[in-house]
Amino acid sequence: MIYLDNAATSWPKPPAVAREMARCLQEYGANPGRSGHKMAVKAAEKIFECRENLAAMFGAENPLSFVFTANATGAINLALKGLLRPGDHVVYSSMEHNSVVRPLKRLEAEGVELSLVQADEEGKVHPADLAKEIRKNTRLLLVTHASNVTGTVNDVKAISCLAKEHRLIFMVDASQTAGSYPVDIGGLKADLVAFSGHKGLLGPQGTGGLYIREGLHLATLVEGGTGSLSENLLQPEFIPDRYESGTLNTPGIAGLNEGLKYLLQIGPEQIHARKKQLEKELREGLSDIPKVRIFGQGDPGVGVVSITLAGKDCQEVCGELDEKYHIAARGGLHCAYLAHKTIGTKHTGTVRFSLGTFTTPQEIEETLQAVKIISRS
Amino acid sequence: MIYLDNAATSWPKPPAVAREMARCLQEYGANPGRSGHKMAVKAAEKIFECRENLAAMFGAENPLSFVFTANATGAINLALKGLLRPGDHVVYSSMEHNSVVRPLKRLEAEGVELSLVQADEEGKVHPADLAKEIRKNTRLLLVTHASNVTGTVNDVKAISCLAKEHRLIFMVDASQTAGSYPVDIGGLKADLVAFSGHKGLLGPQGTGGLYIREGLHLATLVEGGTGSLSENLLQPEFIPDRYESGTLNTPGIAGLNEGLKYLLQIGPEQIHARKKQLEKELREGLSDIPKVRIFGQGDPGVGVVSITLAGKDCQEVCGELDEKYHIAARGGLHCAYLAHKTIGTKHTGTVRFSLGTFTTPQEIEETLQAVKIISRS
Repeated sequence: MIYLDNAATSWPKPPAVAREMARCLQEYGANPGRSGHKMAVKAAEKIFECRENLAAMFGAENPLSFVFTANATGAINLALKGLLRPGDHVVYSSMEHNSVVRPLKRLEAEGVELSLVQADEEGKVHPADLAKEIRKNTRLLLVTHASNVTGTVNDVKAISCLAKEHRLIFMVDASQTAGSYPVDIGGLKADLVAFSGHKGLLGPQGTGGLYIREGLHLATLVEGGTGSLSENLLQPEFIPDRYESGTLNTPGIAGLNEGLKYLLQIGPEQIHARKKQLEKELREGLSDIPKVRIFGQGDPGVGVVSITLAGKDCQEVCGELDEKYHIAARGGLHCAYLAHKTIGTKHTGTVRFSLGTFTTPQEIEETLQAVKIISRS
Repeated sequence: MIYLDNAATSWPKPPAVAREMARCLQEYGANPGRSGHKMAVKAAEKIFECRENLAAMFGAENPLSFVFTANATGAINLALKGLLRPGDHVVYSSMEHNSVVRPLKRLEAEGVELSLVQADEEGKVHPADLAKEIRKNTRLLLVTHASNVTGTVNDVKAISCLAKEHRLIFMVDASQTAGSYPVDIGGLKADLVAFSGHKGLLGPQGTGGLYIREGLHLATLVEGGTGSLSENLLQPEFIPDRYESGTLNTPGIAGLNEGLKYLLQIGPEQIHARKKQLEKELREGLSDIPKVRIFGQGDPGVGVVSITLAGKDCQEVCGELDEKYHIAARGGLHCAYLAHKTIGTKHTGTVRFSLGTFTTPQEIEETLQAVKIISRS
């Protein structure tokens, strides 16, 4: 199996991920932050260790600024619904995933105002275009760090400066970049950063999180038991308890922690450089195939390459890649209709290849061969 | 280690749970319901298998009536916020966990009306007391199946009849009973049933769910990518996609599925009968210790026994049990302040012993010996 669907979920994981999840169930499978017995304390320590590694990974100061959620979608919903009130205005881009667009549309129905900024045909969002939409009641500026359709990376540093200049809250959706492309929260001065645990960070599904800048107070999305201040019938005010109701996914977080440790040990820069090289080879190889059209501006490193083949249905191409060549790619709209509308593929979708930490040059070569043969048929 | 904190998270799990989670990461670690390649299809099939086993476990007709959430708290929040609007009235009991009380208090601030029905000193909620609070605008009748503090079981069948009679939505919090005590959704005719995956159902943390009666349409709590109708910027209307945005916790659900298979194979009745016998021995043994006071009405089977020791601090007792005797119990308020207020322990909390599927007679005996020695010191 050549797995090129890492933008959905990375595979394989470092062996330590499954090993630590099993160890968690065996050795510290109790509730973190509830009881005071040894197994519960050990579970709580593991959760904190993961927060520390997230802080190390993203260059953030306070490990308690990271809140765990079930996935990036949960993090985005918490951020948007925790922050926005009727009358607030949001500027966002046409490259956002449905995990951003659908909650925004829900909020719009409740009185939040939205301005959609069109990215260029390569999928790039220009700060000047964002700036034009800023109004008196603008509260949030929100962009994806990199598109899950084209891999196009936005200049989040420049966009952050724009947000600061206008005293706006700045939020980044780092689902596609966390672990794949450097996300420097400290340098970026983002207020909110949502991320997946099961993509570039190499953790298992069921993990994700939200970085919340210290001092930024959000309304809660979910209230419940936190193991703290149980006599209070209202949600605690302090982080991270305020945003983490109910039992956390300790085995998942223990697995994510191993993914982070693996990345930090090898060095995210090295992983990024390696992926960049492979992506370059894939892009170049694909561009030599006559019927292939590549989308996006090619900022290699995110590991996402979307193509169409003239005269071919994308789902059928993916079916053939899977059945005949054991290559896992994803065809369709990738839960990001506006992005496909932007790059002109709203009716066709694309065939998306997404590279992972463990993708090999041999796999890229075999994929290129397969696409070549399919393109000729 | 004698683990008597199963009401927080069950431990140990059947070995197949960790084994299947590892197999999931290895063999079908892709996104369920997104891509069409073999690994993604296998992941989706496993998720569906778990829904089928949930339906078998709870005697429900349609596997698609089960929605996965990160924990029972997520399920309860989805149910309450999906159903209730300002002006609606809710009748609930004083034995509810903070996972119910805190979201209700949040909704109260937004205009939902609440009536708290006091349980008796044993922790039992009487249908006649609930009936007295029903008003013209009552929309929801909500009780816990069994208290997480005392183990007291409510007559949910009678309460369901009351709800039907008044054409109210009936919701059960089955967090403490699912897998421990029979929950017959089919016979009960409940509209909404929230449950944990990591307690009696023997799954890993990070799993839980909500049964939603067919035809009951809720507002969503979280919107995002569902892998379906990506061209629609609004959330899909159909179940279960409508309520399951973002990547599901496939390894967790695969683990939960093994917990369910284990229970269905042994037979939930047999597990319940065994636990009932052990709980009886624990309750009887404890009642022979002079300084011990047992709370709750003793409806053995849920496996939850709360006590205080005259002249002893509950947290200190738990600390001693842990350190000297390697017995894991939980001291304090157990995230359920109103329940402690009801049974008269709001200032002290209780020492809670909670039995699991794998608790042995020997462990009960050792625990009784330890409590005896501590009570004399």
